[in-house]
Amino acid sequence: MNYDRQYAEYKQSIDTYLANFVDEQKPRTLYEPARYILAAGGKRIRPLLVLLSCEAVGGGKEDAIHAGAALEILHNFTLVHDDIMDHAPSRRGRPTVHKKWDNNVAILAGDALLALAYRALLRTPSSRIREISKVFTEGVVEVCEGQAFDKEFEDDTNVGVADYLRMIQKKTGKMVAAATEIGGLIGNAQPEHLKALRRYGERTGRAFQVQDDLLDITADEEEFGKKIGSDLIEGKKTYLLLMALKNAKGRDRQKLARVFRNGGISKREVKEFRNIYEETGAIRSARQRIAEDIRGAQKDILRLPATEARGMLAWLTDMLLHRTY
Amino acid sequence: MNYDRQYAEYKQSIDTYLANFVDEQKPRTLYEPARYILAAGGKRIRPLLVLLSCEAVGGGKEDAIHAGAALEILHNFTLVHDDIMDHAPSRRGRPTVHKKWDNNVAILAGDALLALAYRALLRTPSSRIREISKVFTEGVVEVCEGQAFDKEFEDDTNVGVADYLRMIQKKTGKMVAAATEIGGLIGNAQPEHLKALRRYGERTGRAFQVQDDLLDITADEEEFGKKIGSDLIEGKKTYLLLMALKNAKGRDRQKLARVFRNGGISKREVKEFRNIYEETGAIRSARQRIAEDIRGAQKDILRLPATEARGMLAWLTDMLLHRTY
Repeated sequence: MNYDRQYAEYKQSIDTYLANFVDEQKPRTLYEPARYILAAGGKRIRPLLVLLSCEAVGGGKEDAIHAGAALEILHNFTLVHDDIMDHAPSRRGRPTVHKKWDNNVAILAGDALLALAYRALLRTPSSRIREISKVFTEGVVEVCEGQAFDKEFEDDTNVGVADYLRMIQKKTGKMVAAATEIGGLIGNAQPEHLKALRRYGERTGRAFQVQDDLLDITADEEEFGKKIGSDLIEGKKTYLLLMALKNAKGRDRQKLARVFRNGGISKREVKEFRNIYEETGAIRSARQRIAEDIRGAQKDILRLPATEARGMLAWLTDMLLHRTY
Repeated sequence: MNYDRQYAEYKQSIDTYLANFVDEQKPRTLYEPARYILAAGGKRIRPLLVLLSCEAVGGGKEDAIHAGAALEILHNFTLVHDDIMDHAPSRRGRPTVHKKWDNNVAILAGDALLALAYRALLRTPSSRIREISKVFTEGVVEVCEGQAFDKEFEDDTNVGVADYLRMIQKKTGKMVAAATEIGGLIGNAQPEHLKALRRYGERTGRAFQVQDDLLDITADEEEFGKKIGSDLIEGKKTYLLLMALKNAKGRDRQKLARVFRNGGISKREVKEFRNIYEETGAIRSARQRIAEDIRGAQKDILRLPATEARGMLAWLTDMLLHRTY
């Protein structure tokens, strides 16, 4: 199977669905930013997981496309609102919605995206629409909880690795698990297959997020598309920082604590901190954790029947592990 | 029937449901503001309409309480986000969420409320849950559209009465119609009863909003609970202002246009503008429009079977017409 080509085809069908989904013109200040963010691209991982999970239990991907789009629209809602809260000036190489318009427009466009996500979801032809909507809704609640924890952590010097993992589980992991579970529900999966899909999604989501933290310090700057070490420069609490702080002693420990206190470091210090991350074993720990989650995820999907879709899920998970951007 | 007492009982059951609904404690910055706004009171008109509409077509109010709460939670979501956008310092005599906490907390608490509204809605025991969720979702989309139009109108000097009526139909009317329609769906209403409930809701919602505009200038300040003329002072485009502007000539017209240009008037000018509203027939026009909608709404519900719930809907609509606060 040429998975690269298949991925490109799936992605194209998702992009097309999203491009046609919002066709209202007025009010202009609502629908222009909504279209702007949906057209900004992205890897479309969540909808892909919905489609493949549905197919992996015998469903048709044309039934899953609505929910796939719903997950992607929801993801974009979180991006618009998070970017306001983080005062982020740009995303995917373009100004963020609140920068291009203003905060009010971004608040409202985000709200509308959340409603539009439900509109897409409710087009899913399935007798299990209540279950599907509940999984989706509980995912939204947890995304909000995760973001609230993330913001609370900014002013909290007592955050540990376990707190961080719980936070990203809510902010990112849960919605990835919701994608695979919803795909399974649309395909009318049996309980044990549903469970396998959910666990696969949870592990993949967590691995993906820790990988994001890791790439911030180890990636190739050009491929990555953003500055290396930006998490450190912004003083963000990441898996690496918290793990390094847990393991560090003496001067290294004091230096790491400074990231907490000062809310970030300067660009020229990034290399020094990368060395601390290496020496304290934080990078090794992140790599191990990702590898472990990916292995677990690959095992989970072996519980599903052997299909082409399952093969592509395995390929996708493997790709996430080896990605360099 | 003692409707006052019955209203108090219904309201109590809604307040209790809402007080018990959000029982999570952490993250604190998410659930404290969510509970704070839900406990702030209010008339609970929307849930009441859901319960009564359900009963009016033969359903049980215990089946409708979840959706009733969902409508009220959704309403509170709009209040939290609208207050950020309007820089409103207080609501119902207490600081607004973004004042008591900050904008970020208010954005996120609002988002969570929207998700929690769906959580409540999806507890509704009904085989028509897909239809119910669709009506709810389309209502949310229109609320966002209405708010976007409202904000766009602030900088638009070409807004007319028809634009205004379309805006409030989206911002307020549609969700009231959604309340009555959802109540009908839960009671498994036949199509003609559903239609009657929806029309009743649309008219009642619109009458309610125009009444709000009217009370801003005609109410008793103490009963009303806010300053008389605050819409004028803030330069808000209301039914009265737009209708007066449509009818006024000469100096009156110039004065009204000043409200547009300057974004408001001073407190001591309110009385003068009230006189202009009287003389241009804007107040009479608002009264007529409200009375017409209320009459239409009363006719709509005569298409429903004669029940106690129908009697109470008629009482409620009448109360809205005669309210002084």
